[in-house]
Amino acid sequence: MREQAMATAIAASQAAVGVSSPNPPVGAVILDADGAVVGVGHTQPVGGPHAEVMALRQAGPAARGGTAVVTLEPCNHTGRTGPCAQALLDAGVAEVRYAVADPNPQASGGAAALAAAGVTVAGGLGEADARRGPLRHWLFRQEHGRPFVTAKIAATLDGRIAAPDRTSQWITGPQSREHAHARRAQLDAIVIGTGTALADDPSLTARRPDGTLHTHQPTRVVLGTRDLPPDAGLRDGAAPLVQVHSHDPRDVLAALPDALWILVEGGPGIVGAFLAAELVDEVQVYLAPTILGAGHSAVHDATVTTLSQAHHLRRESVTELGEDLLITLSPR
Amino acid sequence: MREQAMATAIAASQAAVGVSSPNPPVGAVILDADGAVVGVGHTQPVGGPHAEVMALRQAGPAARGGTAVVTLEPCNHTGRTGPCAQALLDAGVAEVRYAVADPNPQASGGAAALAAAGVTVAGGLGEADARRGPLRHWLFRQEHGRPFVTAKIAATLDGRIAAPDRTSQWITGPQSREHAHARRAQLDAIVIGTGTALADDPSLTARRPDGTLHTHQPTRVVLGTRDLPPDAGLRDGAAPLVQVHSHDPRDVLAALPDALWILVEGGPGIVGAFLAAELVDEVQVYLAPTILGAGHSAVHDATVTTLSQAHHLRRESVTELGEDLLITLSPR
Repeated sequence: MREQAMATAIAASQAAVGVSSPNPPVGAVILDADGAVVGVGHTQPVGGPHAEVMALRQAGPAARGGTAVVTLEPCNHTGRTGPCAQALLDAGVAEVRYAVADPNPQASGGAAALAAAGVTVAGGLGEADARRGPLRHWLFRQEHGRPFVTAKIAATLDGRIAAPDRTSQWITGPQSREHAHARRAQLDAIVIGTGTALADDPSLTARRPDGTLHTHQPTRVVLGTRDLPPDAGLRDGAAPLVQVHSHDPRDVLAALPDALWILVEGGPGIVGAFLAAELVDEVQVYLAPTILGAGHSAVHDATVTTLSQAHHLRRESVTELGEDLLITLSPR
Repeated sequence: MREQAMATAIAASQAAVGVSSPNPPVGAVILDADGAVVGVGHTQPVGGPHAEVMALRQAGPAARGGTAVVTLEPCNHTGRTGPCAQALLDAGVAEVRYAVADPNPQASGGAAALAAAGVTVAGGLGEADARRGPLRHWLFRQEHGRPFVTAKIAATLDGRIAAPDRTSQWITGPQSREHAHARRAQLDAIVIGTGTALADDPSLTARRPDGTLHTHQPTRVVLGTRDLPPDAGLRDGAAPLVQVHSHDPRDVLAALPDALWILVEGGPGIVGAFLAAELVDEVQVYLAPTILGAGHSAVHDATVTTLSQAHHLRRESVTELGEDLLITLSPR
């Protein structure tokens, strides 16, 4: 029953990814004294209620004597909102089960405070699923002090992203593009180089298949020393634009202190620079069933001269997206 | 029972692929009058017995009143060997079930001859499996008058086959190499360009993991106008060497009148030339979980300038080979 509630809490927290930053995307489920689900919630955008408060509001008086199931240890910290541990005590919850202990010293202590008040408290429920699920990028930031970086490649079987005349629409199919847009709605930022910005004039907005904008839009980041024209698509105001006048990927990370998850979208030199700097935590390859045989390759790493310098990855998953394959890998 | 026998016959015929050319790699199973398997055989190298004769020899007198299950209609043709239809009659077989009717007018008529002699004969048993199995390349040759052409690519995720300094051993892993070598033992020929021959000095022999040679070795074909040095690995005598002094893929096919299945191994320009000539019937990509970011791309098609000229394929299968993926595709 609690395991099922944790699965529900993890699923609910998915909706907070990208929206809650810099706070963790947490999910919470309230079970009444009989074990029935009476509230489900997830972290709201910054300044809004945390997951526990959302779930408690839905539960109302039914929370009294019940159990709170939360993906992250309830905070004990009065920031923009009051501490969740106190909210759980006020609601009369008798038991709290959470997945992951809060590694943030400023916010942790919630479990201890609840236990001191007589609540039955235990962590570790569904912890592995929670860690590799929606909390993944936030936990990475707590540990490494920078956002989790996914590098995206959308290429032909022979690694091409554009023909010699730069035509590139569309190499991958509609399912791949829909997948990429849905993911954009969960990102804090998308990074491209000035070369791509000037050549392709993309908007980088997260759009639904019908063309409408997703509610959450990632910050658009352009890396490079050239400036963008006044009428550039990235200046359309649909999402913030950050220009990083440098060629150093580290400067991108420094410019995004609140970001949990960013996507490096291209071009080839930008992906290569992040790889060379060992700042890529995940590679996602959308592979089209096409051979081009000429044109522009997906990655350019100016530091590579011989095979021993290749970037070795570990395959995590292979997913069919219509006619394309999505291959997800992590660095070795 | 007959379905199971056909599956056995198809599996047995796998051992004849590459060995039987230009004859079809056929498998045969003899069931005695009670339906028990008393003989299994496959086509022997040219001049040797056909599958039916091999299976009848094993069955001996037990074939009398029994059933022959064969992947291809028994031949009615006296070539290097006598007609199989007559051998089945001589053995006293009461029933013959085959998968695929012989499309070769010179050899066909076996079913009619057997029926005229009072044997119960029917085709179509397991036909789909037989057609896409070991008989595939021979049937292709009967229909199209040329060998079935597989193009092989072994590359990084970004489509590279060698680093800038030409280092390329090894991009793919041991399972991929073992798979490729086992396949070589079933091929009639492997095609490379003079550029690859001169740069890499490969032997192109089919070797087992312990380094010993497989029994069957494919003909090595080198396409291009430059000559090979006297001490080239391809001149080691381990298998025939055919030099095609041309840049036209059609000349390769003309030089291999008996070949059923050939592999285009590279380099990039040779694969591109076969693609551009629409002479590729299957593409197999061994994809390593590696990004190189520089170096030589897997395919070069000099005719491609814009995306609409891309070669579109249909994904047939994805297989994990250790850390690599093997993606098999067919042309659209």
